[in-house]
Amino acid sequence: MQDKLREHIEKIILLTDDEYLFVKEHFITKKFKKHQFLIQEGDDVKYSYFIISGLLKLVYTDDSEKQHIVSFAMEDWWESDYYAFFTQTKATMSLECLEDTEVLCFTLEQYKKLCDGSPKMLRFFLEKANFGFLASQRRILSSMTSNPKERYEQLLKQYPSLFQRVPKSLIASYLGVSRETLSRLSS
Amino acid sequence: MQDKLREHIEKIILLTDDEYLFVKEHFITKKFKKHQFLIQEGDDVKYSYFIISGLLKLVYTDDSEKQHIVSFAMEDWWESDYYAFFTQTKATMSLECLEDTEVLCFTLEQYKKLCDGSPKMLRFFLEKANFGFLASQRRILSSMTSNPKERYEQLLKQYPSLFQRVPKSLIASYLGVSRETLSRLSS
Repeated sequence: MQDKLREHIEKIILLTDDEYLFVKEHFITKKFKKHQFLIQEGDDVKYSYFIISGLLKLVYTDDSEKQHIVSFAMEDWWESDYYAFFTQTKATMSLECLEDTEVLCFTLEQYKKLCDGSPKMLRFFLEKANFGFLASQRRILSSMTSNPKERYEQLLKQYPSLFQRVPKSLIASYLGVSRETLSRLSS
Repeated sequence: MQDKLREHIEKIILLTDDEYLFVKEHFITKKFKKHQFLIQEGDDVKYSYFIISGLLKLVYTDDSEKQHIVSFAMEDWWESDYYAFFTQTKATMSLECLEDTEVLCFTLEQYKKLCDGSPKMLRFFLEKANFGFLASQRRILSSMTSNPKERYEQLLKQYPSLFQRVPKSLIASYLGVSRETLSRLSS
């Protein structure tokens, strides 16, 4: 199982066995069942999660109780309410399992120790953060320039497996369209 | 002038004089006049820019020639077409001066040398990248949950000076509303 983490890190930077041992020590393993919450709105956000297996949704609930899917997260992804995690404030989003899920996770304190103790991991996190920023910027651009049909097709192309694993109502929420509009787009 | 860069970096991490000297060597200074382009769509993206003074717009032009403002950038900000910069591909956006502008900038090669030679700068860039990711995520969330009036008020609160320095038509383009809607919101 730990090898998934090593494989993931080594897509960006190679580690010696000793270096990987040091990295691994900073993580703990957790398992969750479908429908369990890793983060609930209003709670402290203790962990950043690397997903070994399973599927989650990161959700923001607005003042009128409407749920907005901020992102899906599956194998090989990192997820958390990162604003709350990094600033040690209360969660404004929730993170819930859509399938049984296994994660490796660390606290902010462990993250800082990892960065202090390993320039390689600092470089790994920088690469991931840059990638996260670019992906968000592309999504902003896509929401400005694409219609729902185009956004649906982009998502289908990028993450074909999502459409097998996630109820259509959630895909619609992620795309910001109604369930009816999605049915029209996907027919 | 160079002190602006030092002040900016030292908001996150303190440098010795020697360390700052090393950092400074990786930057070059450039000056641009209002309406000049730092990046044009289709060109190579040589530099990441730190803005010493002035104001710029990052623009994406869609297939129907409509311009979308991806972001504004002013003093103390970093800007580039970062996807093109990091992947060394052609620019899909343009970066144009709205005022006379002075920048410090580095190439991807210099950026890598800076990261290799200074774990402190690695940490600085990680902090900036995390912040950039969080700001983008908040903007995605805001576009999902807020109406144009709320988005207008958020922007006004966050960057009051923008409204003195930028034509209303560009603010409208950034918010994704028509010039007429913006007049209604701001009256």
